[in-house]
Amino acid sequence: MHDSPVRRSTVGVRVQVVDAGVGHERPDRLVTEEPMEIRAHGPGQAPGPVSVTMRTPGNDFELAVGFCVSERVVAHPHDIASVAYCVSNDAPQEYNIVTVTTRTPIDLEAHRRAFVSNASCGLCGKTTLDQVEAACEPITSEVHVAHSVLVALPDRVRAEQAVFDATGGVHAAALFTAAGDLECLREDIGRHNALDKAIGWAALARRLPLHDSVLIVSGRVSFEIVQKAAIAGIPVIGAVSAPSSLAVQTAARLGITVVGFLRGDHFNIYSHPERVDVAR
Amino acid sequence: MHDSPVRRSTVGVRVQVVDAGVGHERPDRLVTEEPMEIRAHGPGQAPGPVSVTMRTPGNDFELAVGFCVSERVVAHPHDIASVAYCVSNDAPQEYNIVTVTTRTPIDLEAHRRAFVSNASCGLCGKTTLDQVEAACEPITSEVHVAHSVLVALPDRVRAEQAVFDATGGVHAAALFTAAGDLECLREDIGRHNALDKAIGWAALARRLPLHDSVLIVSGRVSFEIVQKAAIAGIPVIGAVSAPSSLAVQTAARLGITVVGFLRGDHFNIYSHPERVDVAR
Repeated sequence: MHDSPVRRSTVGVRVQVVDAGVGHERPDRLVTEEPMEIRAHGPGQAPGPVSVTMRTPGNDFELAVGFCVSERVVAHPHDIASVAYCVSNDAPQEYNIVTVTTRTPIDLEAHRRAFVSNASCGLCGKTTLDQVEAACEPITSEVHVAHSVLVALPDRVRAEQAVFDATGGVHAAALFTAAGDLECLREDIGRHNALDKAIGWAALARRLPLHDSVLIVSGRVSFEIVQKAAIAGIPVIGAVSAPSSLAVQTAARLGITVVGFLRGDHFNIYSHPERVDVAR
Repeated sequence: MHDSPVRRSTVGVRVQVVDAGVGHERPDRLVTEEPMEIRAHGPGQAPGPVSVTMRTPGNDFELAVGFCVSERVVAHPHDIASVAYCVSNDAPQEYNIVTVTTRTPIDLEAHRRAFVSNASCGLCGKTTLDQVEAACEPITSEVHVAHSVLVALPDRVRAEQAVFDATGGVHAAALFTAAGDLECLREDIGRHNALDKAIGWAALARRLPLHDSVLIVSGRVSFEIVQKAAIAGIPVIGAVSAPSSLAVQTAARLGITVVGFLRGDHFNIYSHPERVDVAR
């Protein structure tokens, strides 16, 4: 039961580093984010999908087993007979499907989580990404954001959430105009929930698509944040923390500007820098 | 379409504040975490479950609509006809189920995410919590952790993940002995994945239940972190950030010690302080 050694937990990229309004390019590393499908089956059962999780490759067998134990797909850890990658002809996905085999039959239907797909071997992650690409028109917004506006937004978010932030336990998602005016700020213990609340505000106010808005998120920028932003038509995402590899790849493809490490007078641009006005 | 004003985004608790090894009790506030079930239906369709999310109450209708839009349960935001709470006789859950009604039929099966339950109105969140309570024996571990050991653990985690942490984008979950020896450290872009990897390591090494281990997580302590720890038998959870209301309630019930804001020589104990050796 050894994980593949070929998967990398970080990937190299080139970023636009902006300091005090002046940009220059340099290499950087991002944490890898890739979908992994967990399948499970007992004796005489066909492997069925349990969950698809966006994860950092590495210790994949532990992840599959730990998920099955902590979500009680298996009743007892000693029930686990083996763990294996599902390797197919579709090379790019061959280490993204892990099958857990148990000694006793399992009730998959009762434990199935996440979206349940009928994906054949090797297709799951690809299907997910293709769906986004197919359904989302690339964003062609001509909006421009000044460097000076962008660096001021994290403090604006913190000021707005000052009271709630006393608990130290919440994420924020905020929509601003390109001129830096606050449109909507929502908070939640869940990163995705905070963004869904902001998108829901826009939907109920008939403001979708948000082609002129800048989204600021308090946490990291994952694939799902980019996916949700793309569906809402948001052209610029800024964050205090780092984006993932898949977030940047997806944003680059869908025409979304991703800015990370917005701290003081500094930030990094990971995709579509043309929307940020800086000296180069 | 107005959200209930009665839901609170924070709740008051009493915590043991420990500074330089000396503890005293004081009031504190935690961010509220509660399950919300989103249901959806078009004309002539019965409302079906779309997702259950652990969220902070407030802007619940926006959250339901935003989720349906960003996960494409509805094809177009203009398809949304109404949003309403499902209010039943089961008072505690009456503001935890939100139903989205659309103008055109929707394909729920294709979009169903998260665990799919057959919960009748008012039962979903309760069922989830009851399942944990019922299936997990309260943890009776007699393990004790010295104040001086506990405050050193976050730096140990940071030192171990120094290389990977260069990306600024990963969560860590680490298991230590009560004496402060590292058993296992796993990293992932997902908080739950990092913990699942550590639990999977323990399962494959036949070390479950982890009745003598201390879990350190890099992020916040949510209900799901406590739930997974409980199933793995972990008696002590420490975090650099804050726990949620439901995390603390669940930990208190299941006999788990939750320590938060582990920073320098300071921390807060939210539940079962008897396992932490401090002067009082």
